[in-house]
Amino acid sequence: MSYKSGRHFLQIPGPSPVPDRILRAMDYPTIDHRGPEFAELGKEVLAGIKRMFKTESPVIIYPASGTGAWEAALVNILSVGDKVLMCETGQFATLWHELATKLGLEVEFIPGDWRHGADPQAIEARLRADTDHQIKAVCVVHNETSTGVTSRIAEVRQAIDNSGHPALYLVDTISGLASADYRHDEWGVDVTVSGSQKGLMLPPGISFNALSDKALKAAEQATLPKSYWDWQSMLASNATGYFPYTPATNLLYGLKEAISMLEEEGLEQVFARHQRHAEATRRAVRAWGLEVLCLNEQEHSPVLTTVLLPEGQDADRLRQVILQRFDMSLGAGLGKLKGRVFRIGHLGDINDLTLLGTLAGVEMGLACAGVPHQSGGVQAAMAYLSDTSA
Amino acid sequence: MSYKSGRHFLQIPGPSPVPDRILRAMDYPTIDHRGPEFAELGKEVLAGIKRMFKTESPVIIYPASGTGAWEAALVNILSVGDKVLMCETGQFATLWHELATKLGLEVEFIPGDWRHGADPQAIEARLRADTDHQIKAVCVVHNETSTGVTSRIAEVRQAIDNSGHPALYLVDTISGLASADYRHDEWGVDVTVSGSQKGLMLPPGISFNALSDKALKAAEQATLPKSYWDWQSMLASNATGYFPYTPATNLLYGLKEAISMLEEEGLEQVFARHQRHAEATRRAVRAWGLEVLCLNEQEHSPVLTTVLLPEGQDADRLRQVILQRFDMSLGAGLGKLKGRVFRIGHLGDINDLTLLGTLAGVEMGLACAGVPHQSGGVQAAMAYLSDTSA
Amino acid sequence: MSYKSGRHFLQIPGPSPVPDRILRAMDYPTIDHRGPEFAELGKEVLAGIKRMFKTESPVIIYPASGTGAWEAALVNILSVGDKVLMCETGQFATLWHELATKLGLEVEFIPGDWRHGADPQAIEARLRADTDHQIKAVCVVHNETSTGVTSRIAEVRQAIDNSGHPALYLVDTISGLASADYRHDEWGVDVTVSGSQKGLMLPPGISFNALSDKALKAAEQATLPKSYWDWQSMLASNATGYFPYTPATNLLYGLKEAISMLEEEGLEQVFARHQRHAEATRRAVRAWGLEVLCLNEQEHSPVLTTVLLPEGQDADRLRQVILQRFDMSLGAGLGKLKGRVFRIGHLGDINDLTLLGTLAGVEMGLACAGVPHQSGGVQAAMAYLSDTSA
Amino acid sequence: MSYKSGRHFLQIPGPSPVPDRILRAMDYPTIDHRGPEFAELGKEVLAGIKRMFKTESPVIIYPASGTGAWEAALVNILSVGDKVLMCETGQFATLWHELATKLGLEVEFIPGDWRHGADPQAIEARLRADTDHQIKAVCVVHNETSTGVTSRIAEVRQAIDNSGHPALYLVDTISGLASADYRHDEWGVDVTVSGSQKGLMLPPGISFNALSDKALKAAEQATLPKSYWDWQSMLASNATGYFPYTPATNLLYGLKEAISMLEEEGLEQVFARHQRHAEATRRAVRAWGLEVLCLNEQEHSPVLTTVLLPEGQDADRLRQVILQRFDMSLGAGLGKLKGRVFRIGHLGDINDLTLLGTLAGVEMGLACAGVPHQSGGVQAAMAYLSDTSA
Repeated sequence: MSYKSGRHFLQIPGPSPVPDRILRAMDYPTIDHRGPEFAELGKEVLAGIKRMFKTESPVIIYPASGTGAWEAALVNILSVGDKVLMCETGQFATLWHELATKLGLEVEFIPGDWRHGADPQAIEARLRADTDHQIKAVCVVHNETSTGVTSRIAEVRQAIDNSGHPALYLVDTISGLASADYRHDEWGVDVTVSGSQKGLMLPPGISFNALSDKALKAAEQATLPKSYWDWQSMLASNATGYFPYTPATNLLYGLKEAISMLEEEGLEQVFARHQRHAEATRRAVRAWGLEVLCLNEQEHSPVLTTVLLPEGQDADRLRQVILQRFDMSLGAGLGKLKGRVFRIGHLGDINDLTLLGTLAGVEMGLACAGVPHQSGGVQAAMAYLSDTSA
Repeated sequence: MSYKSGRHFLQIPGPSPVPDRILRAMDYPTIDHRGPEFAELGKEVLAGIKRMFKTESPVIIYPASGTGAWEAALVNILSVGDKVLMCETGQFATLWHELATKLGLEVEFIPGDWRHGADPQAIEARLRADTDHQIKAVCVVHNETSTGVTSRIAEVRQAIDNSGHPALYLVDTISGLASADYRHDEWGVDVTVSGSQKGLMLPPGISFNALSDKALKAAEQATLPKSYWDWQSMLASNATGYFPYTPATNLLYGLKEAISMLEEEGLEQVFARHQRHAEATRRAVRAWGLEVLCLNEQEHSPVLTTVLLPEGQDADRLRQVILQRFDMSLGAGLGKLKGRVFRIGHLGDINDLTLLGTLAGVEMGLACAGVPHQSGGVQAAMAYLSDTSA
Repeated sequence: MSYKSGRHFLQIPGPSPVPDRILRAMDYPTIDHRGPEFAELGKEVLAGIKRMFKTESPVIIYPASGTGAWEAALVNILSVGDKVLMCETGQFATLWHELATKLGLEVEFIPGDWRHGADPQAIEARLRADTDHQIKAVCVVHNETSTGVTSRIAEVRQAIDNSGHPALYLVDTISGLASADYRHDEWGVDVTVSGSQKGLMLPPGISFNALSDKALKAAEQATLPKSYWDWQSMLASNATGYFPYTPATNLLYGLKEAISMLEEEGLEQVFARHQRHAEATRRAVRAWGLEVLCLNEQEHSPVLTTVLLPEGQDADRLRQVILQRFDMSLGAGLGKLKGRVFRIGHLGDINDLTLLGTLAGVEMGLACAGVPHQSGGVQAAMAYLSDTSA
Repeated sequence: MSYKSGRHFLQIPGPSPVPDRILRAMDYPTIDHRGPEFAELGKEVLAGIKRMFKTESPVIIYPASGTGAWEAALVNILSVGDKVLMCETGQFATLWHELATKLGLEVEFIPGDWRHGADPQAIEARLRADTDHQIKAVCVVHNETSTGVTSRIAEVRQAIDNSGHPALYLVDTISGLASADYRHDEWGVDVTVSGSQKGLMLPPGISFNALSDKALKAAEQATLPKSYWDWQSMLASNATGYFPYTPATNLLYGLKEAISMLEEEGLEQVFARHQRHAEATRRAVRAWGLEVLCLNEQEHSPVLTTVLLPEGQDADRLRQVILQRFDMSLGAGLGKLKGRVFRIGHLGDINDLTLLGTLAGVEMGLACAGVPHQSGGVQAAMAYLSDTSA
């Protein structure tokens, strides 16, 4: 290993920087997952994670990354050949579509331009047309990590209700939870999927399914084969604070600490902080004369900002220059956005000065890489942040 | 938290005590799993883990616990309704059976008494009888964590070969890898399943499938639905050091360190150390006048020793006394052995003095709990260990 | 580095094993020692350390090891040529004597056999004879780390009082604090010297002077040159939670955690635990047919036990055998005891099973090194510990 | 503790941010400082630290902060009443003066304006005038942490040589070592004093005396009382890798890692990096229309930049605003500069983006606190850094 002075700027939209308190919490010897000390830990994190989703219903914790939690959501409530309705909001919606297809589901994909969230009206229209209720579930990505666009989850709920359709409502907020406002119960979501390595500030390795009574009822009929992902065996063990197979114990230590930290700051303050940093970032982008990918003011992600480069510019080369010269990782353009955009993560354990260091790295990188732009982005962000600091 | 002086003795058969070097290695900030630094790490652990299995074929690393790797092994090579042959060697064989059934497979279970390993002759006979090759796979648990009995994997291979049957050969060495001698290639195993929290000395959270060409070929025909567990997408990404979805990065830091440590000591020395500690433990058990569960001298596990209590004694109460008075966790009797046995883990990062502290805790616990026994177990173990120390 | 399986047994009489909670507490970034966050930390540890000494008077915390705190105690209250009375209880008393001499003090040394504590009667007699009060200070080592003998501090106080002599009373409890009962105020000590790496379970690097009003008054007249050790500048800064020069911030993090841990267990429980482990150790030694160095039943150290080998046996070779074969560090014979004794530390963060592992290592080492002894030491300790466990 | 999102910006001129690698290296159990494993560590750090000072002579490592190493340098080579020549370059020179006085030395202080380094011509003149060689030592602070002004150590050496005076030459580079170019041997320094918590990136708690043959010879005659600081006992123990009293073992683990890191980057690259960051900082200060305290272009510190506020502005209030709003610690004005200046540390483990975050915090703080200034400082620094990045 060759020492490079200073701390790496990890400004991708997750994994987000893991704070020292969480790393230290995880850095304890693994305990017996069948002993009484574990049961206390288990009960504590199973209760705490519900508060993160704002739900009274159970939340399942898997030793798996978010992709596993996607799969879990589907296999617990659906059967081979079932039809699901998805919305093409970006790369992660596309990957969820692929996953569902591989599992033997029939997916209908409402097309999108990757610059808007899911369209409640289109969903309502499609459900109204589905008079024989072939569609078993509507799946929406809350915070599209590939685009920096959020979907309006409460409005989609309203759309489903308006249609009078009985489909289940599944939401992926892998990169939104504990950064962007999210309300599993109030918004009437049946299964919410999330992961550890974004707003919860943990390393990757555990992921979640928040449930509803309706989802639990549907699970009784679902016939897709499952064992590892099976909610029933999880819920049975969780009742006493345990898990049906070996859990990722040290990540649970970290989860306990993460929940404490988020509740010390207060979830509403956490959300406001993310909004403020996102606004500062957009002001910088506009001052550079560049375009924010998200086109709807109501749908800007508080978690990340995706920047569209002018035609002919290579965003991957820009990211490479920034990584080499300024030791900062930014998110790449994914799927059909490859090379066209880069993504600035501003989630999790960051503060004003880290964000400004980040924006300075982007602004210098644009200069070093010869991307046409105006300077002044950092200045614009500073003006906003100092005006709104307290 | 209330401080209790001294280090907890975690002498269950896994998770095993995580050494400081591994905890420290894992205690670094998570890096970008799409960046060049990660690719180096990925390539290094993907190469290193092959040496742990003694294979030239690929090894898949899942962000999941061992149960997930079991499921992965089955869904990649089998189709709904396929028949598999399993051997009732203990609780984990039983759980693997249940899992397979839940996935829609038809399992034939060769019965066993939980005191012997899988019977090569019975397997050979069953395969010979299966003249139309209905059986698609033979599944054997190498080191039964519930009994402390190992199965003779090479002899089972020989039995399959003798029968001339084309079934795939799947082995679970979740609790055996890097503690008990294991040779994926030499022993002709098609899929070996393992996990992180035993001989590899890591916390739980990653698990493995070691493959063979034959397994990879079978995977092309298998139709069980799969996405998270799908080998093909893993292999495609692994080729450049990456993973198709977010890996458990910090556990991979730990895996890199674990492989270094095991290779510093030397795998053969690691195996010999485990054998020596197992022998010392059995000498203690016999000096106490108690019975080792395993009945076949050739099949004693180097990883754990299961001790059968006299009729009428409650092993769970004994374990509770030991936990309360001496701050040591031992393994419970599982399934039909519940309350009849306790299990002493002597795997991973331990040494002579820790083993003797462990045996002292058991001997004192027997006294405190009023379990009829003779003293002298620690003395017997000390005699053996000092004679064989170097 | 070459990996050696298992945790090293550090059974020297200090540094004692540093518990994970303390290591993690210390493993945070250093903060600004002039900022408000530091002041809170400073006030907390300055208050907490007083409870460890059982004093209402100030305790000075030096960024230095215990030897520095010895020097500090002397230079703050004495002047060149002053006479001090010391007692030859062992190697550390001898080193304190040397240190005082190097500083220009005149030391009178009451001779001792290194197998008894300081003799209150001899001290009283000497002070009575010092009718013109030439002796300015009486210096006693509470827990002689080189011999495992404690001096009776309260009785020495009584002896000084009986003599009607105005000398200051200085006590070194570097290896006794937070392991052996100690009461700075009740026992009328003027300056108590201690360090971090024994009962406080910290790494070495900070040390202490607990003061009295009389000591503070004496400091006003003392003329030995001093700056780093000067109490006055310390007290002035400490009043607001700060230090006059850069403190060892990360060790203060650890100190805060150590005080919490000791108070969670309860200081009286901590003392009882040490007494119990010391008794178990002595029973082992006697079962081996070996001799405990300490000859007075009232003066056995709860911190360590020094074992005298039969004539002609080399204790250093024994320790070397034990280190090589069983990865355990024991204390060497120091000064005139070199090669004749070894010392077993049983202080700080240990428990019954670790102590038994330790004693097993000694018993096996005696066998391996060919030292004449009887087996059964571990057995004797087990009998005592299981009888007295709760 | 209440969670505050993001990493604190510790931009004081030391302690500097401790990198994760060093924290992890220190986070291992303390080992026996009398055992063979320690001797290897001791030899390695004693050899490595010499390379940091660029000396072939011994370097003493004290378990003490830098103030202790100052005291050590004086008491080892001087006797009560000896005369030393010091230069009033700032607060730390003033404190060293006070310390020397408290130890009974007679100090002559060449006055200074705190905006220039030591004046070689004034020193030469004073030494020439000292025809009977009353002056025993010349003491110069290399990098004045209170002012951000460096003294030209090689030129002072030349001045002493020119005068033909035999005085010893003592230099304090507590905050300069491993950040600013320093050459103990080449520059003919007799005793160099330094500490751990600046360029070496360690927590505070160990400090250094680099020696010369002439210093060692002088030590034979010096009569100031000493024991803890005594070079002779240190050198005797260090010969075999040990220390005469308990060392700060865990900081030595950190020192080993720090030396590795600095040598991985290369000391000359480390110096160049500090110069570049200092230049960027000065450009920011000038763009703000503020004044850098240091008046001599040749004497700008690469370690910190001291900024003079306009008359009537309160620098401490500014620092408080910045700490509260932007979670950044800056250095206060010390001594006669209190309230007039603030100090920006840019030493140790930092990089371009952290520096820019730092400067952004200052620029926003100036705005929030209403200090008259022009914006554009961050912009100026960015322009310089991107032009000079590689």
